[in-house]
Amino acid sequence: MISQTMLGLGKKSSVIREIFEYGNRRRAEIGAENVYDFSLGNPSIPAPKQVTEAMLSLLENTDPVSLHGYTSGPGALSVRSTIADSIVKRFGCAATAADIYMTCGAAASLTVSLNALVNTGDEVVVLAPFFPEYRVFAENAGATLVVSPPRDDMGPDLAVLDKLITPKTKAIIVNSPNNPTGAVIEEADMVALCDLLRLKQTEYGTDIYLIADEPYRELVYGDTEVPYIPNYYDNTLVCYSYSKSLSLPGERIGYIFVSQKVKDHTDVFAAVCGAGRALGFVCAPSMMQLVIEKCIDAKADIAAYEKNRNLLYDALVEYGYEVIEPKGAFYLFLKSPEADAGAFCEKAKKYELLLVPGDSFGGPGYVRVSYCVAESTIRNSLPSFEKLIKEYK
Amino acid sequence: MISQTMLGLGKKSSVIREIFEYGNRRRAEIGAENVYDFSLGNPSIPAPKQVTEAMLSLLENTDPVSLHGYTSGPGALSVRSTIADSIVKRFGCAATAADIYMTCGAAASLTVSLNALVNTGDEVVVLAPFFPEYRVFAENAGATLVVSPPRDDMGPDLAVLDKLITPKTKAIIVNSPNNPTGAVIEEADMVALCDLLRLKQTEYGTDIYLIADEPYRELVYGDTEVPYIPNYYDNTLVCYSYSKSLSLPGERIGYIFVSQKVKDHTDVFAAVCGAGRALGFVCAPSMMQLVIEKCIDAKADIAAYEKNRNLLYDALVEYGYEVIEPKGAFYLFLKSPEADAGAFCEKAKKYELLLVPGDSFGGPGYVRVSYCVAESTIRNSLPSFEKLIKEYK
Repeated sequence: MISQTMLGLGKKSSVIREIFEYGNRRRAEIGAENVYDFSLGNPSIPAPKQVTEAMLSLLENTDPVSLHGYTSGPGALSVRSTIADSIVKRFGCAATAADIYMTCGAAASLTVSLNALVNTGDEVVVLAPFFPEYRVFAENAGATLVVSPPRDDMGPDLAVLDKLITPKTKAIIVNSPNNPTGAVIEEADMVALCDLLRLKQTEYGTDIYLIADEPYRELVYGDTEVPYIPNYYDNTLVCYSYSKSLSLPGERIGYIFVSQKVKDHTDVFAAVCGAGRALGFVCAPSMMQLVIEKCIDAKADIAAYEKNRNLLYDALVEYGYEVIEPKGAFYLFLKSPEADAGAFCEKAKKYELLLVPGDSFGGPGYVRVSYCVAESTIRNSLPSFEKLIKEYK
Repeated sequence: MISQTMLGLGKKSSVIREIFEYGNRRRAEIGAENVYDFSLGNPSIPAPKQVTEAMLSLLENTDPVSLHGYTSGPGALSVRSTIADSIVKRFGCAATAADIYMTCGAAASLTVSLNALVNTGDEVVVLAPFFPEYRVFAENAGATLVVSPPRDDMGPDLAVLDKLITPKTKAIIVNSPNNPTGAVIEEADMVALCDLLRLKQTEYGTDIYLIADEPYRELVYGDTEVPYIPNYYDNTLVCYSYSKSLSLPGERIGYIFVSQKVKDHTDVFAAVCGAGRALGFVCAPSMMQLVIEKCIDAKADIAAYEKNRNLLYDALVEYGYEVIEPKGAFYLFLKSPEADAGAFCEKAKKYELLLVPGDSFGGPGYVRVSYCVAESTIRNSLPSFEKLIKEYK
């Protein structure tokens, strides 16, 4: 008998995937321009020009044996130094190459971190709503996932969280800006959250690690500030990916930053290296590592996302939808006008609107709208959104 | 407490790494040209020109949103089709895109395959000598590693293997051409091995999966033929990487081919997809996937390896070393003239020869010599090899 867990994971088609496949059929039937597909979280803007230029320059000017050669397990030293220097400069937080482990993207950053920290039977807490793969990653590392429900405004409900943290809590995953809500945890909430974690550490005599999953850090709008968590809480590991900031989702490049203030830092970093070995993740893609070094200050032009956000948010509010105001990422979370968000998403299909029920994100009664699409898709979809809400009036 | 297993893996510096670090110190002291470092298995030849040309062409002619975008979890359909067609053409073995799962290189191919197949308590057999990370990968998937010692000529000892296969045997890893010996399993041995596995499957009423770890398939010399295992044994998964054939070790691109003859193929492939999700490996690096599609028939010019092999092998035999004749890969396995290969490698350092004791590969009393180095390194090292063996005469 093969692994039934892996078989189950492989067979279970994700809700998002099913909606996307439905969209493909619909696009074939009525034309792509008539289907308003808000189901996928794929960046819709190009990588900045510097990225392409850096790749061309590396290909033209670097010895291929070194360009495509193995780096050391945690990554090339010069790349890790450059990233550490940037953390110091941007966030005023101490960092050196010895704190950075290069990874094949965000998922790898999370699986490596969780496997480094978790012993079988530990608990990992997530703040709902949350990216559903957290459950897969945490359970595969041997942990039990504990879901902490949000406040009505989707911020962290610390009164609830207080009851869910136990002596078995090994880590909490914090994802801000958030998928699926687009919410950003404000500084006051972050301070209160970190105070609570410190209190629990003292109460139980344990270490509780905060895993900051931050692929959307650079995608924020207006005057929104995203607190840099290592400055608020010592036992922090930052999981980063360049998927969104450089619009390179398929290139699988990111890193883990083990804050210097993590207790037993040397051991925790060693465990990260060990987990990388065990999962098969040593040496992130070499040329992409060098591209990051050359493009450390580059950023994709996210103006298109902000325009989409404003257009969509303003219209939905005007039509009478209840919407969590998105501060970052490229998601908008709206309250389903009926209790069953799945039923609402089915009705939306009549108007060629493809939306994702919040249930699989631990946000029942809500719907995720991914606005990383062409502006024309937003504009053309607005009459559909208006007709849809009228059904409920 | 963090994971002590991962901490142990991260802290334990590999023997090879220690030798390499020693080499770095020595190079600084006496000059790189005076140190004969045969410790690392890093390709020393460049990627073929087609690879660089393919990358330049993709960067110049493809929309960056699609070039660097997510592919589907198992990889881009066109890439998987191209690989499947190549398997059909080269090996006369049925294959379609539905049998191919793109991975971030050889280690990922192995960890994903093992996690897909293994339940806790299963046994995974390896044929010694073997790549030491097999132990890490198998144990992390929940298996116990069972080591089957070789014949004197380093071929598989089927009489021994016969006794080591039990009802708990879930898989056997076969690595031919082999790291660390450079040996290639001949057809007669392969047939006998597969016969034995079939016999055991029938006897126990179990499925025993053969995991063919084949990153060195294209690196063979003279008229050596490497049997394509899916043509000999039904329950085969081929783990492939382009690290060596295209000299792209740092780019982390490879695949798993689940033979169509694997029992319950659909379920096994689904479990591979599930394990990819759980380990954080969905969607291999996107641009490199497209490079493989464009360079499916390209091959690095391995003439340099063959020249090195001949030069080194002939000289060592002439000096009186006992050497396993290398048929493939870029390794040569020689018998230590004293029982303790570690002590022999220490003596070798006096002559600035950096060799790796076979102990960590499950080949005690032998030494691995990696000849993926400059030809001049081989030529200049020969007097040292000659002096070293004279110490034992």
